[in-house]
Order: sequence, then C-alpha cells, then structure tokens
Amino acid sequence: MQAEIITIGDEILIGQIVDTNSAFIGKTLNSIGVSVYQITSIQDEKVHLLKAFAEAEDNVDIIIITGGLGPTKDDITKHTLAAYFNDTLVENDVVLKHVETLFKTYINQPISDLNRKQALVPTKAEVLTNRFGTAPGMWIEKDNKVFISLPGVPYEMKALIEHEVLPRLIKKYKRPHILHKTILTYGLGESAIAERIEDWENNLPKHIKLAYLPSLGRVRLRLSTKGEDEAVIQSEVEAQVQKVLPLIQDIFVGFEDNNNSLEQILGKQLVLTNKTLAIAESCTGGKLTEVFTKNAGASAFFKGAIVSYATQTKIDILEVSEDLINTHSVVSAEVASAMAVNVKRKLKVDYAIATTGIAGPTKGDSDADVGTVYIAIATDNGVIARQFNMGKHRERVINKTVNKALELLQKEIFKN
Amino acid sequence: MQAEIITIGDEILIGQIVDTNSAFIGKTLNSIGVSVYQITSIQDEKVHLLKAFAEAEDNVDIIIITGGLGPTKDDITKHTLAAYFNDTLVENDVVLKHVETLFKTYINQPISDLNRKQALVPTKAEVLTNRFGTAPGMWIEKDNKVFISLPGVPYEMKALIEHEVLPRLIKKYKRPHILHKTILTYGLGESAIAERIEDWENNLPKHIKLAYLPSLGRVRLRLSTKGEDEAVIQSEVEAQVQKVLPLIQDIFVGFEDNNNSLEQILGKQLVLTNKTLAIAESCTGGKLTEVFTKNAGASAFFKGAIVSYATQTKIDILEVSEDLINTHSVVSAEVASAMAVNVKRKLKVDYAIATTGIAGPTKGDSDADVGTVYIAIATDNGVIARQFNMGKHRERVINKTVNKALELLQKEIFKN
Repeated sequence: MQAEIITIGDEILIGQIVDTNSAFIGKTLNSIGVSVYQITSIQDEKVHLLKAFAEAEDNVDIIIITGGLGPTKDDITKHTLAAYFNDTLVENDVVLKHVETLFKTYINQPISDLNRKQALVPTKAEVLTNRFGTAPGMWIEKDNKVFISLPGVPYEMKALIEHEVLPRLIKKYKRPHILHKTILTYGLGESAIAERIEDWENNLPKHIKLAYLPSLGRVRLRLSTKGEDEAVIQSEVEAQVQKVLPLIQDIFVGFEDNNNSLEQILGKQLVLTNKTLAIAESCTGGKLTEVFTKNAGASAFFKGAIVSYATQTKIDILEVSEDLINTHSVVSAEVASAMAVNVKRKLKVDYAIATTGIAGPTKGDSDADVGTVYIAIATDNGVIARQFNMGKHRERVINKTVNKALELLQKEIFKN
Repeated sequence: MQAEIITIGDEILIGQIVDTNSAFIGKTLNSIGVSVYQITSIQDEKVHLLKAFAEAEDNVDIIIITGGLGPTKDDITKHTLAAYFNDTLVENDVVLKHVETLFKTYINQPISDLNRKQALVPTKAEVLTNRFGTAPGMWIEKDNKVFISLPGVPYEMKALIEHEVLPRLIKKYKRPHILHKTILTYGLGESAIAERIEDWENNLPKHIKLAYLPSLGRVRLRLSTKGEDEAVIQSEVEAQVQKVLPLIQDIFVGFEDNNNSLEQILGKQLVLTNKTLAIAESCTGGKLTEVFTKNAGASAFFKGAIVSYATQTKIDILEVSEDLINTHSVVSAEVASAMAVNVKRKLKVDYAIATTGIAGPTKGDSDADVGTVYIAIATDNGVIARQFNMGKHRERVINKTVNKALELLQKEIFKN
C-alpha cells in the first residue's frame, strides 16, 4: 500500500516557503500503515501537473495533492484535475452554502463571483468538507486508486487529513502496521557507533531496517519495520532494542517516537513529578524557551524565561554581579552558573537552565571565540556548568546549544 | 536553464524530518538565474534512485542530489551513482587526506575502515571539497548536463552550494536573471485583494507572473519574471509595483525579498536610527524573541526579553501589579500595556512589545476564550494595546500573534 504526495506551488520551487505539509502527511500515512513512495513538488503549470498525475497513478495506489486551490488566477489544480479525468466543474450546493456561511461569520459580507467559484467541483469528485477554509477537499476514485486534492494552507490540510482522509483510507484499504522506533544517542559519531554495533546490525532480521540520523551533536538510530500483526512487530523490534542497548549504554539518552520529542518527554516528567522549570538564555535568544512552550500544556511546568541578550540585562534583570562579569567575562562558567541560580531563585522553580555564549558571526561583549558556549543547570542540589565549542555557524551554534541543554537537563531530571 | 532537486532519505518520506534543503537550494539557484522544475524526495532504494536519475536527466540540465552519502550501510547514493554512470569507485587521495585530518583535529583518532570508504569516489566525478564533513561532494558531467551529489547535512550542503557548486554553474552555463518581488499586505483576504486589483492583474505583461500567498493573517503578492537584462526586468517590475500600490495603500506593509524578512527590515531600521528593542511575552512563549535573535547582528538593537509564562512571573519579574491583574484579568489590554511599559523601563529601551493571550488548547489563568490575544507596543510617546482573536489552533495563535506584533511594531517604527 503506497502513496505519492504531490505538492503544488511556485513558492515551494523558488524556496519562498519550506514544504512542511509533506512531512505531516508522510508521518500520518505511516501511522495507518501506508508508505510514502515519493514526494514530488512542482510549479503551478498545467502540463507538468498532468504529467505528475499520470506518473503517480502508474506508481502508487493513493495520490495526495496539496496546493493550488485558492480563488485567484494563479491556482489551477482544480481545473487540471477536471481535465485529467475528462470531467467538468459544476457548482456544489453544499460547498456554496459553506463558503457563504464562512463569509457571513467572519467578515459579515456576501460572497463575490470569485469566492463563488470555490464551490465548483468536478462531477466525479466526492467533496471533503474543509471546516477552516473555502477550498473544498476532493476525493476522486479511479479503478482501485484514489486522487485526493487538499488545500496547501497547513491547518486546513491537517484538519482534512485527520477528519476526512484517514477515515476513508482506513475503510477503503487493507493496510499493514508500520513501526518506527528511534533511539536517541549523544556524544559519539555515526561511524563510531556503526563500528560498535556492527555485529548486531549484521544480524538484524531482513525486514527490520536500521537508519543512522546524525544531526547537531546527536545521532538517532531508527529501526523500521512493517507487518500484519502489530503485537508481533512490536515485540520483534523491542527484542532488537534490548540487544543493542547494552552496546551503547554510555551514549544512550532515550527514545523518540512520532509523538514524543525529548523536550516533550522532559515536560511530561516534570508534570508527573510536580516540578517546575525556568530558563535564562543569552546566545540561544529565546529558542530554548520556545521548544518547551510550543507544546500544549507547557504552562503546567514552565514558569518563564529571561532572555538577557545584552550584558546590562544580565546585570539589571538577572542580577548577575558586575564584578563577576568583569572578573570572568560574560561568557564563562561562573556567569552561566549565576544566571541559572538567579533565575531559579527569582522564578521560584525546581530546575533552571542557563546558556551564555557567542553564536556569531561576530564576537559580542566577550573575548571568547565564536562557538564558545557555557550551559548551566541549577537544581536544589546546586549548580553545574559545562563548556562547549559549537562551531562557527550561527544557526548551528544555537540549535546545538538547545540540544545539549536538553540533554543536560535530561540527565539531571532522570538522575534520581 | 532548469534544475531538478532530488532529496534522498527514508526520514523525509516517513516525516521524521522536514526537508529544508530544497528550499535553500531553490532560492539559491534562482539567485543565479536557474529555475527549479521539480523537487523529488525518495527513499534510500537503488531501483528508485536509478529511475529518478533517468527521469531528471530527461527533464532538466542540472540535477542536484542531496543525502545518502554517510559512511553507514543505509547510505547508497554513491554506489548508485557509480552504477548509473557504469563507473567504479576508486579511493581519492585528496579526500582521504581530508578525512584523516578531520578525525585527527576533532577526535584525535586515526580513521577506521568505515571512514576510509568516505574517500571512494566514482572515476568520472570531480570532487567538491566538503570542508565541514567527511562525505565529498561530487560533480559528474554527461553531455551538456551535470549531476551534483551533496551530503544531506544542511550546513555541509550549504557550504558546498555556495563555495563549490554556484561558481561552477555560473562558469558553465549562460543564465537569465530571475526576479521575485514580494509585496506584504495585512488585513484583507486574498479574494478581496484579487477583486480590487483585477484590472491591474489582467493588464500585467505576459512575462510577469503574479502569485497570491495567504498565510497567518497576511497576504503576500509576489511578482516574478526573468530576462537577459537585469536592469530592464527590474524597471518593468518596479513600474508594475508603482501601479498597484495606490490600489492597496491601506493594507500595504512593506516589501520582502529573499534576504529581508519583515523582522530583518525592522532590525535594520532600529540599528540605522540607533534605537533599541525589548520584549515581554506570554502566549508567544519566546517565539517573538527568537524571530529577532535568529538573525546575525540582533545584539546591536535587541536588549532582551522576559517570557512571563506564569501569572506569578508577571508579578515578580515584570512587576505588573497584582491588583491590576485581579481587576482586569491577566489577558487584558491593561496587563499587556503594563508588561510593555515595564519591560521598556526595566531594560531601558526605545521600543517594547508585549503579548498576553490564550494559545490553547485549554484556558490558562484567565476566563478569556482560546485565541484571545492582546498585543501592546510601548514607545517614548506612550503605549498602545489592541485585542485580537487568533482562532483556536495553538500553533496558529502563536504564529499569527508574532506576525501581528511585527506589523504593529512596523507601524510605530516607520510612523515618524
């Protein structure tokens, strides 16, 4: 059971936006046992759309198309689908009513001719109700294959996938179970890991696939398999995990699955143990705070952060002593420790993280090299601070520091 | 002159990572006059790679491949390229020396057999030096076409594109100029804009393409064209911009180009006028701060932020009075204003932004509906606060609030 995702829009090809829809759709299809064979991104261009539709129909059973459904002239997906199926567009009463209601509710206006065209649908299409927008989703079957056309706006597309597309796919197709289990490691390169676990890897059953995902100071090892019986594949993968863990005990951090990033695991553990967190960040500039607060429920454990982007802010708001800064410099273990201890005290929390460093490209109020970063963790038992060199690339320095801070916090939280 | 980007890796198809490489490559190719015809993402699977290579060779002149160049068994791009070109892999002395140096420098170890394989390169390939990693980039010409294979690690890929690939493409191919100009608007839907500018759109020259990009409360209008003479296409597009601006004066915010997001425009203006910025954020949880600090040079104008994610933090750190909170609730114009005024005073800046609201999915310390957000801007002339309803979707509430805060700050900064 395979799918192809076709994302349509010049903005993707010219790099004006990053296509995040495909990753969401891929992950969601996997969760119901559908593999994605290919993701194809193309311009709003009729000939190219027709070619992509035909190629996808040759290769897979399920074709999911996003984008090109807006009311303006640059959007051509619906007309092209009609042409592909030798079909015509007719006004759909249900969609028309829905568009009228949306306009009445949100801008208290009757719809114009342009909006009325949103209600045109190929006769062969079943309409999938788009509760958040005017462009209808469309489901068109051909033999045992199906074309599904969805708007490109992410939250409209997501709601359609969850509420309309998945239930229909589950009903229509018999699917295997797909399982991905990801082991998170820190501190060793992928080739060194590969050498260490070589025998185990060579003895993996053929139907269990191993992938190495090195990124920003950590390597993720992903085991993937599929099968008819969920319990069977789960116990097979679990058996392999239990075999490999002793080989990587010193670098093992935890597991990730589709729904649990490391920051989510940490957040859940804090809530479970009724503990709280605050952050004082400098070089990471709000990013470390954001990885916690982007998840629903963060306010149950997260009390706040002070982003002290200027030295004076460290003195005025975090109350780091000017003497300490002058003696050790603003990028130092001493200042990181003081930031962590002070934000812990001021926000009255159980755990505090602090970062101070030079993200670059130029040096700030410090003599330290670009990439030098100190991370401190304060707990009721005291404070630890460690120094790192995160390289010369600004975005990488920020993201590696965020990852490393999560790793250090994880060690503290799960120590007891 | 057209290119196809092929990104390889199971992690893309299963949605474990979002493919950001393609957007970077697309944008960069556009900047030298190369259009991207298609982006194709496929699994690490030999037959599929060979098929994708052949199809791309049929369609375009330049094929850029990322991913699958690691030292572990799951990476098969190099062997598959050799098979595609009926070629063999031979050890390349320069690459071997480079890998040895990397290992000596960073982990002070000799290389193993696994790492030594990184030095294997097809005989027909010219090596592109990967200064940040062990996997060499490869440039293979066939007739007047070229296959370029790059590692999937973003910062390795980016350095190779900038320092190795672009100079060679510029030298090898004659290319037109491509111009994208994006007009940023707030406050009107795309269909309403389309109706308002219909006559202008209908009279656009055939070679200038208009696209509507609605997203998170704003609509971007992008004009795109290409031509031999850069000055000519620039003045053609500029003439069209001058015609359309009077029609959208009330919703026009500014321009974006590849190198200037709105937050970058604001940052530059603050530096230019020697002004400073601080932020007090609640529902946006560090995200608003991060959009400023992710850009190099932010420390020249940005002094810091207080993320007051708990009501007590608003009282303790931002010194918002408890009475004010009890009287008006924590999600109110009064509290947003106090947050902005207080963070401005405490961090001694010229401009301060504050956000307070309910991102959801559940209500916090407030009776306000999910999606209710107040944004305040404090300046030397006082403080303004406005109420918004950002909908029910957490990620959207956060991102729409960030966009709206940037828009309000823009109005204040450019008012004078």
